[in-house]
Amino acid sequence: MSCNCDYVVPNKESLAPHYDNCRLMWDELHPGIPCPKNADGTIMLPNKHLAGLDVDILYHLGLDTKTYDLPAMFGDVKFVCMGGTKVRMREFAEYMREVLDLPNKGQKLVNLTKHSQRYAMYKVGPVLSVSHGIGIPSMTTVLQEVIKLMSYAKAKDPIFFRIGTSGGLSIPAGSVVVSSFGLNGNLEQTYDIPILGKTRKLPALPDQRVYQEVHSLGSADDGFGTYIGGTMGADDFYRGQGRLDGPFCDYTEADKMAFLRSLTGMGVRNIEMEAPAFSAYTREAGIRACIVCITFLDRLQGDQVTPSKATLTEWQRRPMLVVGRYIAQYFKK
Amino acid sequence: MSCNCDYVVPNKESLAPHYDNCRLMWDELHPGIPCPKNADGTIMLPNKHLAGLDVDILYHLGLDTKTYDLPAMFGDVKFVCMGGTKVRMREFAEYMREVLDLPNKGQKLVNLTKHSQRYAMYKVGPVLSVSHGIGIPSMTTVLQEVIKLMSYAKAKDPIFFRIGTSGGLSIPAGSVVVSSFGLNGNLEQTYDIPILGKTRKLPALPDQRVYQEVHSLGSADDGFGTYIGGTMGADDFYRGQGRLDGPFCDYTEADKMAFLRSLTGMGVRNIEMEAPAFSAYTREAGIRACIVCITFLDRLQGDQVTPSKATLTEWQRRPMLVVGRYIAQYFKK
Repeated sequence: MSCNCDYVVPNKESLAPHYDNCRLMWDELHPGIPCPKNADGTIMLPNKHLAGLDVDILYHLGLDTKTYDLPAMFGDVKFVCMGGTKVRMREFAEYMREVLDLPNKGQKLVNLTKHSQRYAMYKVGPVLSVSHGIGIPSMTTVLQEVIKLMSYAKAKDPIFFRIGTSGGLSIPAGSVVVSSFGLNGNLEQTYDIPILGKTRKLPALPDQRVYQEVHSLGSADDGFGTYIGGTMGADDFYRGQGRLDGPFCDYTEADKMAFLRSLTGMGVRNIEMEAPAFSAYTREAGIRACIVCITFLDRLQGDQVTPSKATLTEWQRRPMLVVGRYIAQYFKK
Repeated sequence: MSCNCDYVVPNKESLAPHYDNCRLMWDELHPGIPCPKNADGTIMLPNKHLAGLDVDILYHLGLDTKTYDLPAMFGDVKFVCMGGTKVRMREFAEYMREVLDLPNKGQKLVNLTKHSQRYAMYKVGPVLSVSHGIGIPSMTTVLQEVIKLMSYAKAKDPIFFRIGTSGGLSIPAGSVVVSSFGLNGNLEQTYDIPILGKTRKLPALPDQRVYQEVHSLGSADDGFGTYIGGTMGADDFYRGQGRLDGPFCDYTEADKMAFLRSLTGMGVRNIEMEAPAFSAYTREAGIRACIVCITFLDRLQGDQVTPSKATLTEWQRRPMLVVGRYIAQYFKK
């Protein structure tokens, strides 16, 4: 097996020598698991049952393999970017249309999954921008259908990003965090999912070289710091994140602070609600993935999101800037 | 303590004698947990930290306790109805405006939480209709803020419904299920939530009398069956529900069928993605709650949602009919 990394940033000392889905590295990093990538870079889905389907209905996307010519519609996608809200993901698509100097600037983008009423999906050139709602189950529902979509469309070695919002730990509000690992609510670097009544633990690790590359493109002129660190993905916005301001709470402020400090000690830089599953499912599909979040507050200073709407809106553009710069670098190289 | 049930359906043999949040019953059903309901029926939130907040920002609702007069806006709410999509919850609000013969029929409803960009919330008279997205974390994020909202608004003993979509087990597609218990992915009747790094198990039981009352109002003329049964709330749409058609699957059809049959044997009638947490959090807040779902398919017959959009749209109205009838009964009594 030879290396098949299509490097976005040229090799240098500070970067891992390969992506985690490089064919050369796969067996070493994923012993016993066949590489789910074909020789041409398209996705080989690790589910033999799909071959038996006449038609596959991607229910939450409102698409299927019979009515639509998915390779014609989506075969050229290289970057899939996901995030919580429909509005933000439309803004990201509009932003990438500018950054990549694509045609039809200013024209209203079509939500390709509007009639499913669940999510929003926009396409601008090689970039697919998809909303995933809040929390792991909402995110994995659409993520799994987008993974199937990319496989059916024969997209080549697509790179997945999540651009999100989060609470920071010991870093200034407004900073950006690029995730080096996902941590679940029980403080393990796994995504735990019950399958047929028994919990499985899937490793929650984003692609190492991608987060290093993304971080390496940060600039001192950005006006905000970009940090590499662990990301806790909680299943609850209040008690699940040690907040004191939900409807229920029977622990003390000291308990909360001890918990947040122990997270900081484990290398966790921010808390959101999707990282472990996003890392785990993309890895399972042999897809390079990266999570880039803005931090709206420093959780060691408080629980409530107090900055003005205008400030939050400006801050939300920061992960877009960081990811947009990486995507531009890919097409510039 | 004397009974303070405001019965919706008159007492009869087939109904539990009290609601689970009756003051007479509380201590017996919830030993060691103080009743979170004030004498006038308003909600006493079980979190002492809230008293110390100058202002409470209900971030995902785009409301707060300082800028808004919440008692004036929401004090008259008696029924809170939640469901997955914004469109469906707007339709439910429009439907309830007709059923309760409220003013402004035909007028466009205002999404009261539009600028948060996360959920939708509509109010028609005593009914609040709120979207919660897909899955437990998305649902509990807005549920907890709506519970705080109802407490701040001094709404009296509000009753919460979830009207949802699901897959059925051994019942015809198009049937309605009223949940008697929530079951998690590890086949326990609890909602398991990690708090400060340790998992807690909260009982996942909706109000017994409410689901009996709702079921008792079913009519032979409805054109569909309404069943009482357990509801599994999965954290994943594909493997988490024993489907064979996700991007990943390493079990056989026989494994899947054995799993679904074991669920049926445990009294589970349908599978969705919210029931355990919806039951657990409403119970923890001393709120009566009920879950009413349409079943889009019989999972023992298949995995894919194949009926036409028109059929699915018609079926989605069935839980609205069942819940609307119950709400009408309350105001008729």
